[in-house]
Parts: sequence; structure tokens; C-alpha cells
Amino acid sequence: MISQKYKDMLQAKSVIRNLSEYATKRGKEIGYENVFDYSLGNPSVPVPDAYAQAVKRLHDELSSSALHGYSPSLGHPTFKAAVAASLSRRFGVAYTPELIFPTSGAAGAIAHALRAVTVPGEEVITFAPYFPEYNQYVNQTGAILKVVPADTATFQINFEALEAMISEKTGAILINTPNNPSGIVYSEETITRLADVLTRKSTEYGRDIFLISDEPYREIMFDQAACPYVSKYYKNTLSCYSYSKSLSLPGERIGYVAVNPECVDAAYLVPMMGQISRGIGHNCPSSTIQLAVSEILDMTCDMSVYERNMNLLYDKLTELGFTCVRPGGTFYIFPRALEEDAVAFCQKALNYDLILVPSDSFGVPGYFRMAYCIDTEKVERSLAALEAFVKNEYPN
Amino acid sequence: MISQKYKDMLQAKSVIRNLSEYATKRGKEIGYENVFDYSLGNPSVPVPDAYAQAVKRLHDELSSSALHGYSPSLGHPTFKAAVAASLSRRFGVAYTPELIFPTSGAAGAIAHALRAVTVPGEEVITFAPYFPEYNQYVNQTGAILKVVPADTATFQINFEALEAMISEKTGAILINTPNNPSGIVYSEETITRLADVLTRKSTEYGRDIFLISDEPYREIMFDQAACPYVSKYYKNTLSCYSYSKSLSLPGERIGYVAVNPECVDAAYLVPMMGQISRGIGHNCPSSTIQLAVSEILDMTCDMSVYERNMNLLYDKLTELGFTCVRPGGTFYIFPRALEEDAVAFCQKALNYDLILVPSDSFGVPGYFRMAYCIDTEKVERSLAALEAFVKNEYPN
Repeated sequence: MISQKYKDMLQAKSVIRNLSEYATKRGKEIGYENVFDYSLGNPSVPVPDAYAQAVKRLHDELSSSALHGYSPSLGHPTFKAAVAASLSRRFGVAYTPELIFPTSGAAGAIAHALRAVTVPGEEVITFAPYFPEYNQYVNQTGAILKVVPADTATFQINFEALEAMISEKTGAILINTPNNPSGIVYSEETITRLADVLTRKSTEYGRDIFLISDEPYREIMFDQAACPYVSKYYKNTLSCYSYSKSLSLPGERIGYVAVNPECVDAAYLVPMMGQISRGIGHNCPSSTIQLAVSEILDMTCDMSVYERNMNLLYDKLTELGFTCVRPGGTFYIFPRALEEDAVAFCQKALNYDLILVPSDSFGVPGYFRMAYCIDTEKVERSLAALEAFVKNEYPN
Repeated sequence: MISQKYKDMLQAKSVIRNLSEYATKRGKEIGYENVFDYSLGNPSVPVPDAYAQAVKRLHDELSSSALHGYSPSLGHPTFKAAVAASLSRRFGVAYTPELIFPTSGAAGAIAHALRAVTVPGEEVITFAPYFPEYNQYVNQTGAILKVVPADTATFQINFEALEAMISEKTGAILINTPNNPSGIVYSEETITRLADVLTRKSTEYGRDIFLISDEPYREIMFDQAACPYVSKYYKNTLSCYSYSKSLSLPGERIGYVAVNPECVDAAYLVPMMGQISRGIGHNCPSSTIQLAVSEILDMTCDMSVYERNMNLLYDKLTELGFTCVRPGGTFYIFPRALEEDAVAFCQKALNYDLILVPSDSFGVPGYFRMAYCIDTEKVERSLAALEAFVKNEYPN
């Protein structure tokens, strides 16, 4: 029979999608260049030229069956080896190809990681503010998502609340650093303390608590800082990555799970994810995309535009009196709204053709997200609109 | 905690994979050209040249974000429109783009279709012989796979057994025509009768029984016959297709679900599959692959080799005394083994470097499958080995 569960889900329309549709519609009226659309996290910078060259060369040099034949069910050996070598060299964790499971982006990675290290009925803990899709990722496995309230002073971890939430039902912790929507990067201190808590609680409850680290923004860092590599700090870590952001390839659906070599049952986890794939119909990313990305996976796009945009917005927002933690990476910023009701705030902003996303669906009321993966020239033009919005609507 | 369910699945090694690994190992000893490897359904004929041309042109002509940006979550409009137009024109079913859901091959298509039209605890009925992955596809949704015994005289449907198996618990019927492993194509008469049974039983139980039609071999037909298009005969049909076989693109993971325009809740089913994707981490095939296939989806590879191979094998097998229903399509043939124990039979064949797959995992004992998607020259050389095998091991 028709699944009422999935049919009912159609009622809940995504706030972000609604806003994005509004922006498109408004663009038809006044020209899309005049809509300051900060709604979507769709990367704006081009893929490195080497990517297209790699794709073309693969089509010229490989036979049809070598390029387009089935990859092994645990992923293409070339891609697995390239990822393992790159991660080992960059972060000093001794991955072998057997510990890498290629997936359809980070969504696919998280879907597999969750099913491998949690069972239905267990709880998965994440931290506000968080990517709203975590609700779907977790709940559709049969596990239950629990959300630790935000530490709004820093958007690092609220450890008191975390310790109170961990119980014998906790299967895994799901973190996202650099973070969507806050743009905050967990400090080494935060990650170390998190690892200590998880180690202690694992001992206390006599069961392993796994850490699923969602890190598609790992390469988008500001101030020449490096993002601490989470898996180095806690052995029971599954790192979920996507090339959607660092290589601007979101439509190509390529990422991976990297299992820490010292993780419990490390040797089984990738083969288990292969079994999981049989039931969820995933069966590997495209073979061509795996091979092409293998050739350029130490590159990134020129992402300096994101830092320029962040600085422009951060300076203007603070000048206008917004409370805002300065992002350490990503292409998001997450200021406090100027009234308690962020939805009302963002609604008023529409009158200035500013498309801002209210924070409620990220698990924190009273804030808003701006995704500044747009042209700097547009960011510059938007500053006057932002100023007019604030001065007219919140004059005191 | 580690999922014991998926860990336990690692124990059950695939018979086909074991045989394929044996073939590779044996190939290293005597040269792979001397191993008559009939184990794997990996297409041997090249992708049409137009495919690589389309890929290259897309990289030259489209901007990075147009080619590699996120597709909408229900699939790329270009691909959806191309598929709908092609199916409508070829089969006379009035699909619109909204009824097409792009997927990671047929596995992804079936994963989504099953979750959309069945609920956990319901039964899904299929017919022996059947593709062993159906066990995973169905059971991992929480539904239960029931298998109608084979009609070994024709490998059409055993309707008496089907009628006895349908109950108020039946959510969907899963068919595969042309069939892996038998190579048999359901006749128009079979499909009409199946539709009649399902219509009658739906009325009897006051609930809609859905038909999920797995048809990746639809274009690989022999004797210039056309495969009856299942959805024309029963309105509650979800057609699951893959370009893995007809375009030799299995590694690229591209296919679709096509929802019959008159299906119950037709307008909801594709959006529901979008919701399902959020939980299983699928999120669309590669954008480049969707666009490239859109340009060539009325083409097929030159698949005449499969028919030539089938005729060579069928003639030899019948000459050697095998009981065998002549395939109407695919690149499989499914003769009766010369002893009751098909595993023992296939084991003896290994001494002649013939890699045959015993039928047990397909739900029928005493048969074997040959996948003849290999060079004709090799098929020709294998005939002597086949003859030697039969004459030495089964001399009477």
C-alpha cells in the first residue's frame, strides 16, 4: 500500500526551498541580479579546469568497460587508494584503501555510517544549530535524533547539556565542523574535550559511542587556519566527506566515509556499508566521477571569494549592531535577528530583496543564516539594502 | 553500537562473486582468454560513441554551475523530460516529466519504488527464478519477500501458485522481464493475465496491489521481437529501468522509476521518492551523467553479439541433450543441469574452465545460468569445452 509516512512528509515544505523559490520568482520581476539571495548553499566558484581535462582524457584513454563497467561494490580501487593516501599524508591518520567507502556525497556517507554504527531505537546526539536534514538522515534509520542546545556565545559545544543527554541509549554523536549554519569551526580544545567525554561515557556505560563527523566544509577555512581533523582525536570516528563544496561538484554526488584505522571493528565497517548499500539501492557513485576526482583530490576551487564575502558581511553586520560570532570557515554566517521572531525578521527583509533564512529549522530560535556563496559584487551591493532594512525597520 | 545485522551479512558470500573471483585467479594461471567465464552480467559491448561526445561537449559548453551544480531533488528537468517523451512515444503511455524519478540504476529505482508503495510487514511477491538481490532490496525495507515457484516448462508465470500466495498482506508484485537468469520474456498473454489477477485480487481485498516492473533488459530482445511494455497492461505499475545494459553504463549508475499516469496517487509518488531519498542518502545520479544520457537515450549499443552468442549456446546445449527454454532476450541462458545437484554440476565444470552459476540462489534447484556477455570468439572456443565436459562427466 502507499506509504502514508512518506506521503505525510510532503506537507512539510522546506523553509529554505520556499525562500529560494520566492527569490527565483522575484528575480523574474526585477532581474535576479537585484535579488540578494542568501538562501542556498550552492557553491558559486567554478570547478578547477583540471577536472574537465581529466574527464575528457579518461574518455579518450580508457576502454568503455574500464571506464563505464561496474566498480567493485566497495568502490573503485583507484579512488579508494587516492583518498586514503591523501588523508594519511595530510592528517597523519594511517588510512588504507580498505577503510574508504565511496558514497553519493555526504548525504550518502552519513546514511551508511549511521546504519553501520547505530541500531534502531538508539539515540544519535547532535548540536544546535544543525543542518535540518539530520532529522531525516537519522530518523529514517529508526534511530532517534536528540539535539544539544546551542552555546550561543561561541557556537562551540555546550558540554554540560551534552553530558546530561548521553545515556546508555546513545549510539553515536553527529557533529559538523566547520558548521552549517554557524560557520564556526570546533577548536582543538573542543574536540579534545568531546573525545574525553565520549571515552569516559563509553567506559561508564560499557559500550562504544561512535563519532560521525560530517565535514564537507573542511577545506573552506578563513585566516589561513587549518581545520582540526576530528578523527585524529577520537578513534571511534567515521569521517563523512563530500567534494560538493571544495571542488564545487554537488551535482556529481561524490564523497566518502573514512573509517579510523583504530575504530572498533574497523575492518568490518566498509564491507558492512557495502551490505547496507544493497538494501538502500546506492551502489557507488559514478565510475567516471570516481576516476576523475581521484586525479584532482588534493586541489580545491579558488575559494578566496568566500572569505572576502564573509569579511564584508561580518564588518557590516557588526557595524549595524548585530550580535554575530565570526565564522572560521564555510560560506555561512549566523547573526542574531533584531527581534525575537526570526521568521518575522526574515519576512520583513524580503521587502528589501534580502533573502535570509530564519534559524528555527536549525534548532535555535532568533537567528538567521546567510549563505554567501554568491558574487562579491552582489554582496557589496547588498550592504546598502541591509543598512536600509535595519535603519527603517529597527530604528532605535 | 555496531549493527550486528549488517555484520552477520558478511558471512554469506555471494556464489556468483566467489565464482568470478575463481575465474580471475584461474585466468592468472592459464590466461584469462582461456577461462570460459560465464559468471557475470557485466556488458561487454562498448557505449555508443555519441556518449563520450556528449560528455565532452557538455564540459565545453556549460558553465561549471550549470553542469555540476545540485540538480533539483526530484531529478534534472532535462533528463526527466527526455525520458518521459521517449517512453510516451515508444510505448504509448502518456508520461509527463513529473512522473519520472531518476535513480542510481535499477537498484536505486527498486529501493525507492518499494518504499513508496509498500509498508513494513507487507509481503512482496516475486517469481522464481529471480535475481538474488531481491532478497536484500525487499527485506531491508521491512517488507517480506515471498517467492512463487517456477513454471519450469516455460518460465512464464505459475498462476495457480501466485493466486494461492496473494493475500490481504500483499503490498506489491515484483517482476523482471526479460528475466535474469532465465532470459525469458513474459508474453503479452502472461502480462494480461497477471493484470487480471491483480485487478481481481485488489477488488477482493479492497486494497491496491502495486506492480513493480524491473526491466533493465527491455531493449535486449532477440528475433526482432519487441518486449511488451508492462505498464500498458496494469495502471498501478512502477517501471524500474537502468541504462546499465542497453547503453553498457553500469558503473555510471543511472536509471529511473516511471510512474504510470493512471496509478493510484500518481502525482504524489515521485515527490514521495524524493522524501525517501533524504533518508537513504541517494539524492540523484550524477548531473553530468543525467545530461549526457538525455542526449542518447533512444540509442542502444550494438547488442547483436548477445543474440549471436545465445544462438551458438542454445544450439550446442540442445545438441548435447540439455533441457533449455530458448531465451527471448537478455544475455542469460538457464539450462537444466545434468544432475540434480547444480552446485556439484558447476563444480565439475570448473575442471573444463567453464564458469557456470548454479541456480540455487535464483530460487530454483537443478539449473545453471550462463551470462554470455562475452566475445563471440570465446563462446565459440567454449563449445568444445562444453562438449568435453558433458561427454566425460555424463557419458550415458
